[in-house]
Amino acid sequence: MRAVDLIIKKREGGELSPEEIRFLVRGWLDGQVADYQISAWCMAVFFRGMTDEETAALTQTMVDSGQTVDLSPIAGVKVDKHSTGGVGDKTTLVLAPLVAACGAPVAKMSGRALGHTGGTLDKLESIPGFRVELSMQEFVDSVNRINVAIMGQTAELAPADKQLYAIRDVTGTVESIPLIASSIMSKKLAAGADALVLDVKTGRGAFLPRLEDARKLAETMVAIGQRAGRRVVALVTDMDQPLGHAIGNALEVKEAIDALRGQGPADLTDLVIALGVEMLVLAGVASSAEQARNLLQDALTSGKALAKFREMVVNQGGDPACIDDSDRLPQAAVRATVEASQAGWVSAVDGKQLGLITMELGAGRRRKEDAIDHSVGLVVRAKAGSWVEQGEPLCEVHAASPQAVAAVTDRIRRCFVISQRPPRSRPLVIQRIAG
Amino acid sequence: MRAVDLIIKKREGGELSPEEIRFLVRGWLDGQVADYQISAWCMAVFFRGMTDEETAALTQTMVDSGQTVDLSPIAGVKVDKHSTGGVGDKTTLVLAPLVAACGAPVAKMSGRALGHTGGTLDKLESIPGFRVELSMQEFVDSVNRINVAIMGQTAELAPADKQLYAIRDVTGTVESIPLIASSIMSKKLAAGADALVLDVKTGRGAFLPRLEDARKLAETMVAIGQRAGRRVVALVTDMDQPLGHAIGNALEVKEAIDALRGQGPADLTDLVIALGVEMLVLAGVASSAEQARNLLQDALTSGKALAKFREMVVNQGGDPACIDDSDRLPQAAVRATVEASQAGWVSAVDGKQLGLITMELGAGRRRKEDAIDHSVGLVVRAKAGSWVEQGEPLCEVHAASPQAVAAVTDRIRRCFVISQRPPRSRPLVIQRIAG
Repeated sequence: MRAVDLIIKKREGGELSPEEIRFLVRGWLDGQVADYQISAWCMAVFFRGMTDEETAALTQTMVDSGQTVDLSPIAGVKVDKHSTGGVGDKTTLVLAPLVAACGAPVAKMSGRALGHTGGTLDKLESIPGFRVELSMQEFVDSVNRINVAIMGQTAELAPADKQLYAIRDVTGTVESIPLIASSIMSKKLAAGADALVLDVKTGRGAFLPRLEDARKLAETMVAIGQRAGRRVVALVTDMDQPLGHAIGNALEVKEAIDALRGQGPADLTDLVIALGVEMLVLAGVASSAEQARNLLQDALTSGKALAKFREMVVNQGGDPACIDDSDRLPQAAVRATVEASQAGWVSAVDGKQLGLITMELGAGRRRKEDAIDHSVGLVVRAKAGSWVEQGEPLCEVHAASPQAVAAVTDRIRRCFVISQRPPRSRPLVIQRIAG
Repeated sequence: MRAVDLIIKKREGGELSPEEIRFLVRGWLDGQVADYQISAWCMAVFFRGMTDEETAALTQTMVDSGQTVDLSPIAGVKVDKHSTGGVGDKTTLVLAPLVAACGAPVAKMSGRALGHTGGTLDKLESIPGFRVELSMQEFVDSVNRINVAIMGQTAELAPADKQLYAIRDVTGTVESIPLIASSIMSKKLAAGADALVLDVKTGRGAFLPRLEDARKLAETMVAIGQRAGRRVVALVTDMDQPLGHAIGNALEVKEAIDALRGQGPADLTDLVIALGVEMLVLAGVASSAEQARNLLQDALTSGKALAKFREMVVNQGGDPACIDDSDRLPQAAVRATVEASQAGWVSAVDGKQLGLITMELGAGRRRKEDAIDHSVGLVVRAKAGSWVEQGEPLCEVHAASPQAVAAVTDRIRRCFVISQRPPRSRPLVIQRIAG
């Protein structure tokens, strides 16, 4: 077997066998196949795609490149949830304690902010004292004791994925659906859950704005999961505008707490319930979607969900007083309002731009090593589909200085498209794809 | 400017500016752009192609990477000729002295055999004593004195092309027409001729078997030449079967001498005349194709062409006695005949296979460092379009041993397709493309 022949086979539209995929990727990790060969193959994959069998083989090779998490010491069916990343997406903060409150064990490994999207770990670290770096023993013990823990993903999972991503990032081969799918799924499979619910975002604020791409990604990931013997359900969900109102770490924690009280924005709550239904059914806690929905709604209105969140915060060293008094969360020095320059329907809100602006305010990272400011961010006051009068607030800015506000005001205003006709809306959950 | 953005631009079907091409390729040569980036870009070029302007910029960047030959000390318009390589293609051996005999200066740099095609230098070295390694001074002096010299290409021409080819060779990106075109043209432009005649082969024995690919390659090379201010004419010519009868070094020299006497195979002579017409017109020696053709035919029948060949052999240290007595050329130990197993029309002769078999007999090289045997080879006795009776010779084998003959006999027979209907033929010169 020669690497060049496998590259040519893919270039000509052929399908590589699992052995051939392993030869190529494993050979590359071992130094037998060169970087310039793997990058040429990635570009051929960009143009030719991969079959589900190829994608599954690539994923498995990456899983096998490192450690895998053994969640068997945790009783019950462990269901993980993954989002492809959006703006204002604080879903995990609500969903993890909510599902745990309903009786399903939630052993969640999460990531950090990068680019225009936030990260669950950064958001949680807005809570003074909250520790996301747990040992595996602490993690397992926490879930067995209180049914929920959220920790940072350990570096050893699917290290080949990190290496492959690094080379894709500088060779223009990131935007390939099978490569994206195997990258996500390699980490998820290595993280050891029995079943997985995927939230695949589509629309202006998503990594894959086009619906057909999001759908294809969802289908590909479900197929990978099936071939790996895991149950996977994917929901393709709307990210045409930010989810909820808050964008930025502490602001999102505050909004998540509102939602756990049953007082969150409708879109956030709807998405949490939709994902929660899938998780409870996969976990075997509910035998039907109907029953799952009732359990979830009851946990929100009864206060059980918020109580579980409090338990989690305390368990991981955070200050629970923040939950009742949001002034104890980091506060930005300056608050300002961006107002509508004309009356009309808000027909679009550019979530990606707002995400980038939030990053520039200091809430996110351009590079992995950047420090972040938990207090800053935006609160969207006029969501798409609402009517605004001239001078009414479109967005609140929470910033470190008046200069920082001034630098972004006009750009924020341009993120809101005002029109004389109400926009067409689409449902939050656009499609459900199950394995 | 970042390499990854240029790769993505090409991947998305965009056109890079000459500055961007230079940034990428020059940056790569200087170590600023990585091998894995240049290979990913080559694969994107494979799928997206390049415009003539991009291809010309790549070619010029490669020309600028090394020395260029200064042919200005040679009086007159210097016309070079290049073939994309075929089987049994001894055209240069005939064409160079023939055109020189008609009054055009021929300063020819040639290559060696690789893979299934032969090389002019190896063929010339069949002549005992013939030196192909000349100094530039000897080369220039020879052309000024006797109008013709053939030497090995010095290594310093377009070194970037060699580097780029090395990476393309192992990343499945050889078969890209703009990359092939700029590879050929970078060496030709660096070799310093004023004008260029290209013989672009198509058909079974050619590197690019499909006519549309050969035509596209010819057009691309002509466009590159134009942008570099050189006059270029390309002939797309048939290589569906070997040219002439002989394949292998000394055997081809013998056939070339026959042609210089005006007694060569019709297809070889026709091709030599067609290419010679273009060269004489470009050189300004003839004012019309008609006049050029007359000059060439006269040189063949009058003995002037053969006399010029003799002059060239003597000038480069070869033994001129070989010309009159072909037994002084290297002779193979064993001769055998492969016969037709049935009567019928020879409908196809697989030149590529015969070229590979000739290489395996020892006439060519699998790797650059392989030694070659000048004596061995094949003589095709039944060309496509001829009728053979059962038991009539299809091919003569000249080999080093009876074992070598036995190893190839069946394979040779399979190269000749015998059918009950005469094959359709196409003209030798299929298309002429001029800048």
